[in-house]
Amino acid sequence: MTPEKRNGAKLLGVGVGPGDPELLTLKAMRALGEADVVAHFAKAGNSSHSRAIVAQHLRAEVTELPLYYPVTTELPSCSAGYRDAIENFYDGAAAAIATHLEAGRVVAVISEGDPMFYGSYMHLHARLAPRFPTEIIAGVTGMSGCWSSAAMPMAQGDDVFTVLPATLPEAELERRLAEADAAVVMKVGRHLPKLRRALEKSGRLPRAIYVERGTMAAEIMIPLAAKRDDEAPYFAVVLVPGWGERP
Amino acid sequence: MTPEKRNGAKLLGVGVGPGDPELLTLKAMRALGEADVVAHFAKAGNSSHSRAIVAQHLRAEVTELPLYYPVTTELPSCSAGYRDAIENFYDGAAAAIATHLEAGRVVAVISEGDPMFYGSYMHLHARLAPRFPTEIIAGVTGMSGCWSSAAMPMAQGDDVFTVLPATLPEAELERRLAEADAAVVMKVGRHLPKLRRALEKSGRLPRAIYVERGTMAAEIMIPLAAKRDDEAPYFAVVLVPGWGERP
Repeated sequence: MTPEKRNGAKLLGVGVGPGDPELLTLKAMRALGEADVVAHFAKAGNSSHSRAIVAQHLRAEVTELPLYYPVTTELPSCSAGYRDAIENFYDGAAAAIATHLEAGRVVAVISEGDPMFYGSYMHLHARLAPRFPTEIIAGVTGMSGCWSSAAMPMAQGDDVFTVLPATLPEAELERRLAEADAAVVMKVGRHLPKLRRALEKSGRLPRAIYVERGTMAAEIMIPLAAKRDDEAPYFAVVLVPGWGERP
Repeated sequence: MTPEKRNGAKLLGVGVGPGDPELLTLKAMRALGEADVVAHFAKAGNSSHSRAIVAQHLRAEVTELPLYYPVTTELPSCSAGYRDAIENFYDGAAAAIATHLEAGRVVAVISEGDPMFYGSYMHLHARLAPRFPTEIIAGVTGMSGCWSSAAMPMAQGDDVFTVLPATLPEAELERRLAEADAAVVMKVGRHLPKLRRALEKSGRLPRAIYVERGTMAAEIMIPLAAKRDDEAPYFAVVLVPGWGERP
């Protein structure tokens, strides 16, 4: 994205942060100003979260390329049906972007959080980086947004910090929670009852904080022990802060 | 940091990102514009890294409050001498900041990376948050900066991601590296020979990338297996990317 490259094709993986539009970086702003095409992922029938974050910074003349996931949580991610649908989807999305790149355009794929940290952009990067110049623009992760909103010191000194998907088996969740000084559990959704048991058995429930839509206007943040129901969206996270030994 | 609070005392923990000044957020820029006092940590005799990141955005009339660590790596962090010196240092720094807050000023403590993720700001927050209003501004972490600079997909899907300090015993490093799909090892410094053995035994050495000064002009990034010597600064990191199963 140096000026001399401005006139050449380039694929930009642009992190747009956790949701608060003020958590965009100057570099992401520059990418949005330079991009001919802005691509964004969304669930079919929904509007894109990443587009909403940058909406006020999209140039009027930019070409938008919405990329709609054919499935999200309707099929198990280990099933052949899911894998085929997703693989075809990423192949098609990469082909659509390649058409713009072949025409010499700068294409920015905007990603919530950080593009290389559990981001869909990685699937496009793997397909396109061998053929086109790319640049990754790091973003504030969703988890940083959550613990900052909570003003919660998360990890310090020699803490071991772990990110776990709530999809893991209960015994493995319990063991890994017990072994980490600090943890973030993602993809909570329907796994909340299992996660709650694993937190209780590992002794981490008293420290656990439940977060929905971190940094956004509709943010929900409560101690998990105080949450009475087991309703949770897929993108809810649970934070287990570390820093046990405070000088 | 809403306008109506502008005239009241406030402590801001401001993440300024991994080193590239363009990875500042809009929110950090606003904090720098509003702060009466900007405090920054540095090793005694050195200039502050976080100050260098924001130097071009400091207002001419701002009051700067440099905070010099009395010790860094000269004493073992588990020693009584280290703990006493550091505790006294943070007590004094908090007292100096409290004087400004009591006078009704807005004090921004700038932190490399993200303030609540292994940041020194947390020690001030723990001392001051019970007495003064605070706001945390999330930042791009050093590790996100490193893997983005490397254009390296780091973690995806159901990957377990772990951050480990290189200070851990060799057997524990080996076991934790083997159990994580993706890992970042921090505080490499003089622990590099031990870390190299743990990576080799856990089968992770072929994937390991060594990084110094990620996102900065003087960045060094090479496969660890290709690094011939065992010289490493304290702030060097090693990345072990995950995403083994790619659709």
